[in-house]
Amino acid sequence: MARRYFVGIDLGGTNIKGGIVDEDRTVLSRVSIPTEADQGPDHVIGRMADLVGRVIEEADLAKSDIEAVGIGSPGSMSHTLGIIIKPPNLPGWENVPLRDRIKEMTGLPTTLENDANAAAWGEFWAGAGRGTRHMVMFTLGTGVGGGIITDGRLLRGHFDNGAELGHTIIQPGGRRCGCGQEGCLEAYASASYTARRATEAVEAGEASSLADVLRTEGEITSEDVVNAATANDPLAVRIFDETCHYLAVACVNMQHATNPERIVLAGGMIAAGDVLLEPIRRKAAEMTWKAADDLPEILFASLGNDAGFIGAAGCAWLAREEGEI
Amino acid sequence: MARRYFVGIDLGGTNIKGGIVDEDRTVLSRVSIPTEADQGPDHVIGRMADLVGRVIEEADLAKSDIEAVGIGSPGSMSHTLGIIIKPPNLPGWENVPLRDRIKEMTGLPTTLENDANAAAWGEFWAGAGRGTRHMVMFTLGTGVGGGIITDGRLLRGHFDNGAELGHTIIQPGGRRCGCGQEGCLEAYASASYTARRATEAVEAGEASSLADVLRTEGEITSEDVVNAATANDPLAVRIFDETCHYLAVACVNMQHATNPERIVLAGGMIAAGDVLLEPIRRKAAEMTWKAADDLPEILFASLGNDAGFIGAAGCAWLAREEGEI
Repeated sequence: MARRYFVGIDLGGTNIKGGIVDEDRTVLSRVSIPTEADQGPDHVIGRMADLVGRVIEEADLAKSDIEAVGIGSPGSMSHTLGIIIKPPNLPGWENVPLRDRIKEMTGLPTTLENDANAAAWGEFWAGAGRGTRHMVMFTLGTGVGGGIITDGRLLRGHFDNGAELGHTIIQPGGRRCGCGQEGCLEAYASASYTARRATEAVEAGEASSLADVLRTEGEITSEDVVNAATANDPLAVRIFDETCHYLAVACVNMQHATNPERIVLAGGMIAAGDVLLEPIRRKAAEMTWKAADDLPEILFASLGNDAGFIGAAGCAWLAREEGEI
Repeated sequence: MARRYFVGIDLGGTNIKGGIVDEDRTVLSRVSIPTEADQGPDHVIGRMADLVGRVIEEADLAKSDIEAVGIGSPGSMSHTLGIIIKPPNLPGWENVPLRDRIKEMTGLPTTLENDANAAAWGEFWAGAGRGTRHMVMFTLGTGVGGGIITDGRLLRGHFDNGAELGHTIIQPGGRRCGCGQEGCLEAYASASYTARRATEAVEAGEASSLADVLRTEGEITSEDVVNAATANDPLAVRIFDETCHYLAVACVNMQHATNPERIVLAGGMIAAGDVLLEPIRRKAAEMTWKAADDLPEILFASLGNDAGFIGAAGCAWLAREEGEI
């Protein structure tokens, strides 16, 4: 039987990444191009269709070798309808039938998934979650994204809003989140809110090496907090410890909700390394119940920036497995 | 084609309930007998096998009419192995292969499920969750139990401990729960902890009509708290309001985790009626995000005490559908 090849496309506000992944999860080509989002949907869709051709060519394949195309796109979107609804970082996009447009332009079966689900599916299918059937992913970036795989299936939920784990409430009555809720995981543990909590403490007059950073750089980033914490700056240690604390709470909560074998941490913040991973593991182990020995393994994602397009290719594989396309 | 009939057995520490349910979810017979748990596993298993015969007889059926038997049992247990591991309310039971024992004694295909999952599956299959594919259930009794159905499938998790929703942490660093964690939903919102929080407040000297209850009855129950709250006793109002508050947090958290269409509340506490349901709905609507309109419908279970055996029968139906037995 011929080998099976899938195209994955990761649509972002700045870049479009794409590549070919085969059924054994091997990446055969990868290409990144600027999105040029300011030129509107038709232009961007044209670029995506061109990219499909280019990644096929770079892998020395022909279009007839390709089984299907998967697209990961920012929300809001609908997997079922294949439509981009109104993503904040793609100006001018509103109810764009992206799946069918790409299908028409490429002549290939196409599926559309939100980018957080696609990245989680990528880690499950080809990365840190490979080999288990039950995984949860937290993506720690500007916000906190989530993904849930249960019994080998991607959890989408009734409203296609499953696994919005950054907006689970881990401190009722706590900090106001951008989403309108109080006490969201994201309002404590994302890179931007970690930086903001440090900035607020410095502005309130707490002594810290971060005061110099704020004065000279004009802002404090989460990397600054990590660096200052590593250098034992007491304020930074406290702020970063809180980030790890709330992430541990979130891990324990998902242990009891969907009871995965592995919890995968992804996103820009994992560049912090063991300074992030070790306290989350330790705090979760201290915090969790004693009624059963079912704390998931907590580990870092392994696909880096490729998770998006690999996961999109994996979603194409999944849609074919489930007979959806 | 002949009609399909299933036996459901709900094994409890005090009573064993059983009945016949057909493929249309109609209950054809129901019988309850004392468990006589003090006489050990062999005795109880014999009673369960007898009960299978009795519910068949009461429905005017023959054993050859029955497609399968489902058993809901207290944990710890293993669905996969069909074994009761060591339930606290069944003294002397340890690693009992209940599924295969009942299968041998009745000659019928048999499946074993934990009682919380069986009850949730019952509401999903035949009760308040019927017609949706995405449901979460909270069972508010002595503890807080949970059940999750996602895309029409019962969520069990990697360790068979999925949907232990009473032990999600809704107040980090909060009250110590019996499970060893701090700030569990159960440690605030179960019937017993609602009563305990009221008792502690009275014992700390707060003025309340519940002080008389404690003096005359020797204890305060959750029903006493509901009654006093309904009569506008300020302490009872505050305690019960907290119970509703934490249940609303838990609803919002499951909205963002598994994103169900409906959240079903079950268990003894729902006898409180609108006094419980209305504030949970209101608080969840106030508390939830504004980013999407995806708060699930929150409603009461509809099967009452029959949920256990109906759900067990439904698990037998499910195991046949999935080709498991």
